[in-house]
Amino acid sequence: MSEADLKHDPMDHAEDTARQDAPESDSLDEDNRLKPEFVRSVKEALDEEDTDRVYDLVEGLHPADIADLFELVDERERLTLASSIRDLMGVEVIAELNDWVREALVEALPADVVAEIAEQLDTDDAVAMLEDLDEKDQQAVLAEMEPEDRAAIESALSYPEESAGRLMSRDFVAVHESMTVGDLIDFLREHRELPTEFWEVFIVDPMHRPIGTCSLSWILRTPRNIPLYDVMARDQTLIPADMDQEEVALRFQKYALISAAVVDPSGRLIGQITVDDIVHIIQEEAGEDALLLSGAGDGDINEPILLTVRARLTWLVVNLATAMLAASVVGLFQGAIAKFALLAVLMPIVSGMGGNAGTQTLAVAVRAIATNQLTDSNTVRMILREFRIALANGFALGLLIGVGTWLIFDNPLLGAVIASAMVINNLVAGLMGILVPLTLDKFNVDPAVSSAVFVTTATDTMGFFSFLGLAVVVGLA
Amino acid sequence: MSEADLKHDPMDHAEDTARQDAPESDSLDEDNRLKPEFVRSVKEALDEEDTDRVYDLVEGLHPADIADLFELVDERERLTLASSIRDLMGVEVIAELNDWVREALVEALPADVVAEIAEQLDTDDAVAMLEDLDEKDQQAVLAEMEPEDRAAIESALSYPEESAGRLMSRDFVAVHESMTVGDLIDFLREHRELPTEFWEVFIVDPMHRPIGTCSLSWILRTPRNIPLYDVMARDQTLIPADMDQEEVALRFQKYALISAAVVDPSGRLIGQITVDDIVHIIQEEAGEDALLLSGAGDGDINEPILLTVRARLTWLVVNLATAMLAASVVGLFQGAIAKFALLAVLMPIVSGMGGNAGTQTLAVAVRAIATNQLTDSNTVRMILREFRIALANGFALGLLIGVGTWLIFDNPLLGAVIASAMVINNLVAGLMGILVPLTLDKFNVDPAVSSAVFVTTATDTMGFFSFLGLAVVVGLA
Repeated sequence: MSEADLKHDPMDHAEDTARQDAPESDSLDEDNRLKPEFVRSVKEALDEEDTDRVYDLVEGLHPADIADLFELVDERERLTLASSIRDLMGVEVIAELNDWVREALVEALPADVVAEIAEQLDTDDAVAMLEDLDEKDQQAVLAEMEPEDRAAIESALSYPEESAGRLMSRDFVAVHESMTVGDLIDFLREHRELPTEFWEVFIVDPMHRPIGTCSLSWILRTPRNIPLYDVMARDQTLIPADMDQEEVALRFQKYALISAAVVDPSGRLIGQITVDDIVHIIQEEAGEDALLLSGAGDGDINEPILLTVRARLTWLVVNLATAMLAASVVGLFQGAIAKFALLAVLMPIVSGMGGNAGTQTLAVAVRAIATNQLTDSNTVRMILREFRIALANGFALGLLIGVGTWLIFDNPLLGAVIASAMVINNLVAGLMGILVPLTLDKFNVDPAVSSAVFVTTATDTMGFFSFLGLAVVVGLA
Repeated sequence: MSEADLKHDPMDHAEDTARQDAPESDSLDEDNRLKPEFVRSVKEALDEEDTDRVYDLVEGLHPADIADLFELVDERERLTLASSIRDLMGVEVIAELNDWVREALVEALPADVVAEIAEQLDTDDAVAMLEDLDEKDQQAVLAEMEPEDRAAIESALSYPEESAGRLMSRDFVAVHESMTVGDLIDFLREHRELPTEFWEVFIVDPMHRPIGTCSLSWILRTPRNIPLYDVMARDQTLIPADMDQEEVALRFQKYALISAAVVDPSGRLIGQITVDDIVHIIQEEAGEDALLLSGAGDGDINEPILLTVRARLTWLVVNLATAMLAASVVGLFQGAIAKFALLAVLMPIVSGMGGNAGTQTLAVAVRAIATNQLTDSNTVRMILREFRIALANGFALGLLIGVGTWLIFDNPLLGAVIASAMVINNLVAGLMGILVPLTLDKFNVDPAVSSAVFVTTATDTMGFFSFLGLAVVVGLA
């Protein structure tokens, strides 16, 4: 998925003076995004089917920007763009493409062309390209590939989706503990088929189990005659191949890793994961909370619109059911409302404010659970913390709205009722906002996905019930 | 902030066999979090002031886990913990501590002790430690420091908060273009004061302007007599020192960088940023959308509770004002509600569903803007996309609730009114959900911070107005 793990030949670099990522570029704005004028010129050239002009425009771009360009042009223009710049469509571009855009392009290409591209990609990128194809297309592509590449991809596909086994690269440098620094440098100079971009060397025992890692900087700074055994760090983070990618990302972050060894159940080194593959995942996993909490599903703007409608509508229909539940609470008080319609005017304030306060607590709790900050060790403290915050906010808001209501409608009893309801509903919001995600997490349900329904149901129903109920009890209607 | 940029001596590693990050650990659970039993033992030992036992328990932990432990014990136990494990409180622990926890610890320590710690930290970590102290304490600490370290920190503090200048490390390896691979290796072996952990070497011209970078893996694989000039990549991403850290994080991600040169306005190389410092920022910046959208402010569970209450209450009071605006719309229809109280029962469904749909669109738009996926080039396409989604969802939900209302209350006209209001409010939600964040972004206001208020105000008021207004127009009340 990333540029740095694509194979570079070190000798190639003297040539590529053309690409310069500089702010004074013709195609990029000051935020490093493709300029709208530039995108418009490309679109015009595409519309006129002027492939030479398209090529001239795109030629100078960095592969990551070519990938962005695919997202920015219209869907129907993407295939024309791909065929206009055929020899610029290198592995870097394919690896950087948005999943949805790549899937659509890949589906439009014949199996043998896809196989040809897949063979040039690193295994992890090839897997990302093929994993979303349907079974039949996938088999057709695999059948066209060289046996060795096919085996690597099939082995990767045998791991669960979003696991370390799918993410790992099978290109890494592992050497025996008996080597010296000098031996290693000679070995690296002689073996040109090794990956060119790597940051650490793994030291393995005779059973091919990792026993330490060496940063390249340590190797470069150490005299040739020193054994690697004396330079390596024994303190290493081993990633089991079936570990979920979110967990992998947390380890990379916690221990500030650059790369990590992936091991099979018997402890043998089978791959490596590098940090540049992880930054995408950290960003996606951290960013998806906002989307999941809102029920926006995948949230990718390139997702086919029918899938988007289905994902969002499912969530909205669930919420419709809970809204009807809340409405039925109001229904219990129709008589009171008919007598004193002002109740209907004020009741959405109580339920709405509860919803806002609950969403705040929920957002905090979901982030803290996702980042391993909220664990069994501090659960009680955090529940008490949210309780105190809810109490403070409830009293402050209750006072404001209570006094306001009293003064505006000259009705102190109505003011007292709405103030009390506000305190009650803030407490409901605060407690549900933290207890719901904690409970879901206990049952291994992602709290970001389904907490909001429970919390807003609680704040809506309790908001209406406490306000209207109190009003009836004190004889306002 | 991170472990990898702390200075390691390569020769030290043979000793540290003790730390092993393995799932079978006594202190860590299967998700790599400290076990509650373990934290409880530490807390018991702290309560009994049994410092030896505390030391024994903590001794085997990784610095990142010691930092986590500080978060998990109660606030009043943290100072005792720090003094019980004084010589384990290495720079790695300080660098990994949560900002709030560190700030509280640092404030409790005398200025000369803080100065001593700061001198051992890398500049970026020292800045993180000192930047939140108030002016007076900061000056007291700086006065205790060696002139050279003080100058580096003062220079970092002269850059805006959250800029590349604060984030960068002043330890990096830059060499002249005339060197060969062999010269560089000799240079690295001779200069022990260089940073031990680095991933790329910067090649500079006589004016100290970066002209290329060399991955260490290329250097290790290239014969000694080859000039660096022929190995280096000329294609580099230069970071201006005043660039915002969010922008820096986007560049690292887009171009899959491991490290990048930071330059001053004249183009001179003044520092480097490495990816391990960036993963925290990527995670924070991506994760904060969920918190900002909900108005939960910083959202860190270690934030002092009074600051949390103030941040959340500010947001809630703003929302109270908008809730009162929505209520005043209902107020216009009090007469109608008194005549036909069922309207009050159904109206929250329309406003609530609009709120949900608006939040979905908003979450998607805010993420797409933050990740540079939504730019001027595809704005119109995305607005049309949201319009189509809103239309589809509006009709589906309108049909459901319309038919439901008709059947339950045996009132086809009421069903038609609520169905129409649902379509209208979904369109309002979809359009506001994308137009509000786009507009705020145009005026350089962070759309995550203030969009939600405008969107929910629109869906609340339009929900009530369209439903109650239509009901009156068709003569239901």
